[in-house]
Amino acid sequence: MDQAGSMKRNMNTLPASERITVRRLPQRASYEEAAIQAILDAGLMAHVGLAVDGQPYVIPMVYGRLGRNLYLHGATVSRIARQLAQGIPVCFTVTLLDGLVMARSAFHHSMNYRSVVVLGTAALVTDEAEKTQALEAITDHVLRGRWAEVRPPNAQEMKATSVLRLPLEEASAKVRTGPPKDDEEDLALDCWAGVIPLRLVALPPEDAPELREGIRPPESILEYRRS
Amino acid sequence: MDQAGSMKRNMNTLPASERITVRRLPQRASYEEAAIQAILDAGLMAHVGLAVDGQPYVIPMVYGRLGRNLYLHGATVSRIARQLAQGIPVCFTVTLLDGLVMARSAFHHSMNYRSVVVLGTAALVTDEAEKTQALEAITDHVLRGRWAEVRPPNAQEMKATSVLRLPLEEASAKVRTGPPKDDEEDLALDCWAGVIPLRLVALPPEDAPELREGIRPPESILEYRRS
Ligand SMILES: Cc1cc2nc3c(=O)[nH]c(=O)nc-3n(C[C@H](O)[C@H](O)[C@H](O)COP(=O)(O)OP(=O)(O)OC[C@H]3O[C@@H](n4cnc5c(N)ncnc54)[C@H](O)[C@@H]3O)c2cc1C
Ligand SMILES: Cc1cc2nc3c(=O)[nH]c(=O)nc-3n(C[C@H](O)[C@H](O)[C@H](O)COP(=O)(O)OP(=O)(O)OC[C@H]3O[C@@H](n4cnc5c(N)ncnc54)[C@H](O)[C@@H]3O)c2cc1C
Ligand code: HEM
Ligand code: HEM
Repeated sequence: MDQAGSMKRNMNTLPASERITVRRLPQRASYEEAAIQAILDAGLMAHVGLAVDGQPYVIPMVYGRLGRNLYLHGATVSRIARQLAQGIPVCFTVTLLDGLVMARSAFHHSMNYRSVVVLGTAALVTDEAEKTQALEAITDHVLRGRWAEVRPPNAQEMKATSVLRLPLEEASAKVRTGPPKDDEEDLALDCWAGVIPLRLVALPPEDAPELREGIRPPESILEYRRS
Repeated sequence: MDQAGSMKRNMNTLPASERITVRRLPQRASYEEAAIQAILDAGLMAHVGLAVDGQPYVIPMVYGRLGRNLYLHGATVSRIARQLAQGIPVCFTVTLLDGLVMARSAFHHSMNYRSVVVLGTAALVTDEAEKTQALEAITDHVLRGRWAEVRPPNAQEMKATSVLRLPLEEASAKVRTGPPKDDEEDLALDCWAGVIPLRLVALPPEDAPELREGIRPPESILEYRRS
């Protein structure tokens, strides 16, 4: 590991392991808890990987975070909930696309991004208080303050729902920013180079068709945005 | 399978298998080749899952499509390229986030999305012509027409790059659209409900710092958008 890499592992970093170590372009990696949490808090969905008889499955899911735990939810009867509850190894990946990096050479094209990979084992949340807090965290992760505005789950809904906890212990972040890095001799080419920034934006909210008359979207919805 | 499900499997559908069948909310599933290809063509990145000693890894990657083949690329020396080239089982998932579905009850919150899961085995592309076509497909998938504008890869760059082919044979799509579906008795609640549409938009392009004077971004970059 180079100097920058070892420095990055000094403070507030998650415990390192061989398998969580970024090998390609390691200067883009970080194991700092704050950096990892910031990316997770900015993301809206994860891609969750599990293997069944050697066959990997990658399933998109929403999530929430409470301190050093990530939470997932799904139907109690679903395969993903049942498999994860058995404590099989899981990979939890969140990727934010920040831009398209257009170089003068095909080879140096890239993307600007922030991504996090978490490895570990999930566990079924059986404590009812933790389960409710987790569902609140998932809901408020998607839209801060939403939980307080809506009807909370009833007993039947809670029963139909499984919540899984994944400790945020073994994780890596990888980030690319900035312009393309072309070879010196390509700088003279007659070709545009630069970055097309990308952003996930919210369009004006659309009322549900049977919305009660006189109800307007709150500020949090009118001004919805993610970082 | 319900009526709609069996009808959907009638024409231009990919060969069905047990493991590629969506179980939860199957009315949102499709196995039609055209639907699957449209989602893959709209996406910018995939989350690729592979398992090493039972531990799944989910890695974001760009991709391209040529007919019934998907193509991935990476450093020849990278783990992902070396593992995939060995012909291990892979899961390739593309998810497009179209909106946040805000219900009056916490339970009925959801997201609007288009997603595709492809299962199969990747193979290393060894034919140089196919390899070049695949890199062209990846580049033009990200920005149509870009390949023709840039310096093509030289022999050394080709050597440093591995290209993998994943046949688009066993795949499923799942799509949610439309407003929240609240319970009848919740419609009277004093709570906004509806959809916050989300879109990945391109901001104005940023010139590379050492861009040759007088070069302007082409229309394809100024007008960049995805569906
Ligand atoms: C943005 C987003 C967020 C989601 N959040 C959640 C969540 O938080 N909790 C939750 O339970 N579900 C969530 N889903 C749905 C989730 O992806 C699965 O569809 C769901 O868990 C049910 O899977 P299953 O049991 O039917 O399929 P599984 O038994 O897990 O898989 C069987 C087969 O179904 C197909 N399949 C499953 N899911 C998809 C998919 N999304 N797209 C295409 N094919 C698929 C695949 O071929 C897979 O091999 C989300 C989906 C999206 C797109
Ligand atoms: C949007 C996007 C598109 C990409 N497209 C490509 C592509 O087309 N081809 C390509 O080769 N690479 C691509 N990458 C980079 C890719 O995700 C891997 O980082 C890369 O393949 C090298 O991985 P590795 O060999 O270092 O790690 P591996 O040996 O594969 O993994 C070892 C460990 O490194 C960590 N790690 C690896 N990748 C990431 C990551 N992205 N974020 C956080 N931790 C990570 C994990 O902890 C993992 O367990 C892309 C990344 C992003 C975000
Ligand atoms: C629009 C086209 C392309 C895009 C968007 C793209 C994007 C990317 C991205 C995001 C990565 C990961 C970088 C990282 O780990 O941070 C990557 C890696 C790589 N790309 Fe591309 N790429 C494109 C075209 C090409 C072409 C045409 C070639 C070869 C001729 C190529 C060769 C490579 C190689 C060798 C790596 C591995 C780098 C490493 O791990 O050291 N790319 N690409
Ligand atoms: C903002 C908050 C929430 C969001 C964005 C959200 C999103 C989602 C999404 C996208 C799915 C997958 C639907 C599909 O397969 O098409 C899902 C499934 C599910 N959600 Fe949520 N959810 C939220 C809150 C909750 C809460 C609070 C509960 C329970 C009280 C809950 C219970 C469930 C259940 C049981 C399923 C499985 C449905 C099935 O497979 O039949 N969700 N959720």
